[in-house]
Amino acid sequence: MNEAASTLEGWYALHDFRSMNWTAWKSADDEDRAMALDELQAFLQEWAQIDEAKKGSTAVYTIVGQKADFVFMHLRETLEELNAVETAFNKTSFAQYTTKSYSYVSVVELSNYLAGSDGGDPMENPHVIARLKPSLPKSQYICFYPMNKKREEGSNWYMLDMDERRSMMRSHGLIGRSYAGKVKQIITGSVGFDDWEWGVTLFADDALQFKKLVYEMRFDEVSARFAEFGGFYVGTLLTAGTFEDLLKV
Amino acid sequence: MNEAASTLEGWYALHDFRSMNWTAWKSADDEDRAMALDELQAFLQEWAQIDEAKKGSTAVYTIVGQKADFVFMHLRETLEELNAVETAFNKTSFAQYTTKSYSYVSVVELSNYLAGSDGGDPMENPHVIARLKPSLPKSQYICFYPMNKKREEGSNWYMLDMDERRSMMRSHGLIGRSYAGKVKQIITGSVGFDDWEWGVTLFADDALQFKKLVYEMRFDEVSARFAEFGGFYVGTLLTAGTFEDLLKV
Amino acid sequence: MNEAASTLEGWYALHDFRSMNWTAWKSADDEDRAMALDELQAFLQEWAQIDEAKKGSTAVYTIVGQKADFVFMHLRETLEELNAVETAFNKTSFAQYTTKSYSYVSVVELSNYLAGSDGGDPMENPHVIARLKPSLPKSQYICFYPMNKKREEGSNWYMLDMDERRSMMRSHGLIGRSYAGKVKQIITGSVGFDDWEWGVTLFADDALQFKKLVYEMRFDEVSARFAEFGGFYVGTLLTAGTFEDLLKV
Amino acid sequence: MNEAASTLEGWYALHDFRSMNWTAWKSADDEDRAMALDELQAFLQEWAQIDEAKKGSTAVYTIVGQKADFVFMHLRETLEELNAVETAFNKTSFAQYTTKSYSYVSVVELSNYLAGSDGGDPMENPHVIARLKPSLPKSQYICFYPMNKKREEGSNWYMLDMDERRSMMRSHGLIGRSYAGKVKQIITGSVGFDDWEWGVTLFADDALQFKKLVYEMRFDEVSARFAEFGGFYVGTLLTAGTFEDLLKV
Amino acid sequence: MNEAASTLEGWYALHDFRSMNWTAWKSADDEDRAMALDELQAFLQEWAQIDEAKKGSTAVYTIVGQKADFVFMHLRETLEELNAVETAFNKTSFAQYTTKSYSYVSVVELSNYLAGSDGGDPMENPHVIARLKPSLPKSQYICFYPMNKKREEGSNWYMLDMDERRSMMRSHGLIGRSYAGKVKQIITGSVGFDDWEWGVTLFADDALQFKKLVYEMRFDEVSARFAEFGGFYVGTLLTAGTFEDLLKV
Repeated sequence: MNEAASTLEGWYALHDFRSMNWTAWKSADDEDRAMALDELQAFLQEWAQIDEAKKGSTAVYTIVGQKADFVFMHLRETLEELNAVETAFNKTSFAQYTTKSYSYVSVVELSNYLAGSDGGDPMENPHVIARLKPSLPKSQYICFYPMNKKREEGSNWYMLDMDERRSMMRSHGLIGRSYAGKVKQIITGSVGFDDWEWGVTLFADDALQFKKLVYEMRFDEVSARFAEFGGFYVGTLLTAGTFEDLLKV
Repeated sequence: MNEAASTLEGWYALHDFRSMNWTAWKSADDEDRAMALDELQAFLQEWAQIDEAKKGSTAVYTIVGQKADFVFMHLRETLEELNAVETAFNKTSFAQYTTKSYSYVSVVELSNYLAGSDGGDPMENPHVIARLKPSLPKSQYICFYPMNKKREEGSNWYMLDMDERRSMMRSHGLIGRSYAGKVKQIITGSVGFDDWEWGVTLFADDALQFKKLVYEMRFDEVSARFAEFGGFYVGTLLTAGTFEDLLKV
Repeated sequence: MNEAASTLEGWYALHDFRSMNWTAWKSADDEDRAMALDELQAFLQEWAQIDEAKKGSTAVYTIVGQKADFVFMHLRETLEELNAVETAFNKTSFAQYTTKSYSYVSVVELSNYLAGSDGGDPMENPHVIARLKPSLPKSQYICFYPMNKKREEGSNWYMLDMDERRSMMRSHGLIGRSYAGKVKQIITGSVGFDDWEWGVTLFADDALQFKKLVYEMRFDEVSARFAEFGGFYVGTLLTAGTFEDLLKV
Repeated sequence: MNEAASTLEGWYALHDFRSMNWTAWKSADDEDRAMALDELQAFLQEWAQIDEAKKGSTAVYTIVGQKADFVFMHLRETLEELNAVETAFNKTSFAQYTTKSYSYVSVVELSNYLAGSDGGDPMENPHVIARLKPSLPKSQYICFYPMNKKREEGSNWYMLDMDERRSMMRSHGLIGRSYAGKVKQIITGSVGFDDWEWGVTLFADDALQFKKLVYEMRFDEVSARFAEFGGFYVGTLLTAGTFEDLLKV
Repeated sequence: MNEAASTLEGWYALHDFRSMNWTAWKSADDEDRAMALDELQAFLQEWAQIDEAKKGSTAVYTIVGQKADFVFMHLRETLEELNAVETAFNKTSFAQYTTKSYSYVSVVELSNYLAGSDGGDPMENPHVIARLKPSLPKSQYICFYPMNKKREEGSNWYMLDMDERRSMMRSHGLIGRSYAGKVKQIITGSVGFDDWEWGVTLFADDALQFKKLVYEMRFDEVSARFAEFGGFYVGTLLTAGTFEDLLKV
């Protein structure tokens, strides 16, 4: 049996993709729409406060195309908190004008493939904590996709020994690092939580960097031979103001 | 032809995943909601009594994310009883505010790969009976997923001889046992009953243990080479009180 | 080119899986429900008469879990008759309270892999006719699943020569026969009729026998190397009386 | 690079599978139903006239099982005409009582694998034209399925050289020809038009011949090693009169 | 690690496939329909102006068959603009009579496999710019499909070295060029943006050329061994006038 890579886990993550029911939204009367918008704005404020208090973080983006109209990416300390934020949203009037599109449950993860080890407790290391419990950036663009490592005859990631995996992950990590300053990458583990093994959330101020990064990685052995990808979602930053604009009818 | 592992079967299992129709629930008048909640509470009580009488067991959990809002995991002596509990629920007013999300039909199973044999009738053994007809734990978290063993060229579990399978299952079982006290695992067989060969239901008071257990097992040859996984569902314990809170609008 | 196994065909089969729209059913007024139930009972009687007259056979079972609430398995002399029974049901008031879940079109089939040959015309042989145009049993449980034989590199059933196939089918048939008296098995061919090559319908008075039979067969080379399975459906016998109970609200 | 087989193309084809919304149909008042039926009959007549004028051809059949209630198979000179007939139908009152089930866009095709070459322009050959622009038969049964040729390691149709493909297609064609008089086969190409590479539409007065033909072909190397199949649809001939009966409530 | 082909990117693309809700459209009163049509026409004009101003381009086509009724293919400078055009359309009255069918997010791309290099900055080259920011043609027919390059054992595009890939892409490009004047081809990259790696949009005045081009390419090694295809959509040009006709009820 091979050795599993050890991992560190931080905040739990819920990516909550929603679509507007535009017909219902348009046919609502002004008062109902105003009330719904107030509830939405109250949530956006509440989430911003949680962010400030460093008790979690929430990113809010549109999604381009028909897959969804927007996504809430919530990071929280516990699954209970994720459940609570999801349920609270479901109970708003605003939510009644939306439909569910897709969701993903995972937990922020650092794997030890790339970790330097200085002998200390990593959970005491503020750099590690900052990565495990990150304040999500306000970049202009978001990209999300889930992925697996293959377990096929001849391409079985889980039958490789630790050294092979570590060496490939290092090379893989170098590509990621070459995009430092251009793409911020948050890896979340979802083994036992959702249908793929990892979620990848990218943030950038130039959406083309998503394409360049993912494409370049695809030629790297880890992706070329071992990666399976789910659906890709791309979108643009929503603020309280631009969300209001999006919903103006 | 290879020898099939012999198995012992206990209670039948129905995992019944449901979502709330929040729009209908919110727009119901208070009286209708109260009546629906009464029916739900009556069922929860009835199920608790069945548990106490050791005629079955029912676990009730939320599900995080859009896949479902909650799951009822019912264990009963017969398929007729599972059918009856499902139909009785479908007839409640409360059920009219829910939609079907997913379900799984299986039967609690012990395989002889790991069984010690002391020559006696295992169905007279109280330890065996306790595992075949378990009272489901009240752990804080649940994780459910269905799985198959592969039948592919080069990775065909069903073409291995019994000794190979037994040896791999032993190693696999050791991982499970190393989580004793942290994760309780209930294996249900669904060959002939549902679309995958087994269902796996895990219970823990720390949800991260699901990730750690499933991830560690993935490097074990049984999973690495032979396992195919369906969707994963994760959720948190619901009591009569917290279910009421969840539904408060 | 390999020789195809010759087959004998009997009655056409339609498995018609339906779910109740419980909300509509509950909100119907008593009179409408009574009328719908009368229509259902009239159909059940009509189908029983066809069975007695040996002009076809119909089995009626619940389905456990969310996939469906019940199944009508109809055997008839022609596709026109299957179409007619389906359309007649669709036009009932009762059908308006149901939704379509799944269906399967096939024809009862005996393959010559296992046939003894005494030189006579098999269609004159009453034992053969009884198997091709069977009266469906009133066993307590039903199990249905569709299946294919694989056509993959290294596991291509259709590239094996007749002798290999016959020898494997014999061994396969021995397992089936060892369940004689416990499981009744009806094989229907669906090449050219539906999405899989065969349908398998099992009847038993002990549902565990489905699991044991299908699991044991899975280790047999025919299944282990060559079988692909669709979804599995399991349910319990419905009579005029228990169907009425099921629908009581 | 291999040589592609050259092909001749005739009429474009649209298979338009529809289901009745029986609840809406039953609850319509008599007048509305009568008007809808008149529109349907007007279309059937119009399509028959197009057939007579040899400007196209339309076949109308039921579909057995839940996949659809009936299919219109339209052959027309251009995609615009197919679009027009589809849109015109969508605008009828009758169409408002139906739902879309499946459709397939393709073009009648003859491949040169089997073509004799007498040096003349095949498009001047009346036998060729009759096959490329056929009047669809009024056989009692229809069978439709889409298919691909595999492009897998070890089974890659498109990496075979022309001679291998031609030799296999000849043997394949011999099976088809052995069903002459029993099964009429129309091959339509859909590369660039729909999700599979070909559509196969079979017509016969004995539905069992579909099963026998497709099953026998499955043992032929072209199908055994290289064919991938989509869903299968089977149904019975509808005339103006039997369509009216089907819809009588 | 292999070298990724470098790429040039131009306008972002959104293919927005929609279906009419004919029942709602027919049952709307004349005034509502007129208003909806006015909004649609206003959009068509606005999009034409953007085209003229070379700030983007929009193609409008029907789709044959049930997959969709029409497609808007929008090219714009930024994802924000695509989002804006999609949202603006969603807010129209006309959109309330449509349903979402499929969408695709990508960016016009030129890969360097085929690029000649004259040492200058390609983004200063008007021929390159014309291809990256094209005015979509008014050809009579459109064909769209998404595709991947395979990453399988034995057929892994991303494990080939640059020279092999370049040589295959050259041969592939020769086929495309042999259709010059018959088929216009726009390649859009979607790595990081949508579920496949590329979108291919073809324009032609003879729809058969789509079939001939895609079929011929399928025998080319790049497609035969390495291409995976998604769904295919084919349709005919819509002008302000023919769109109005399409919607006349």
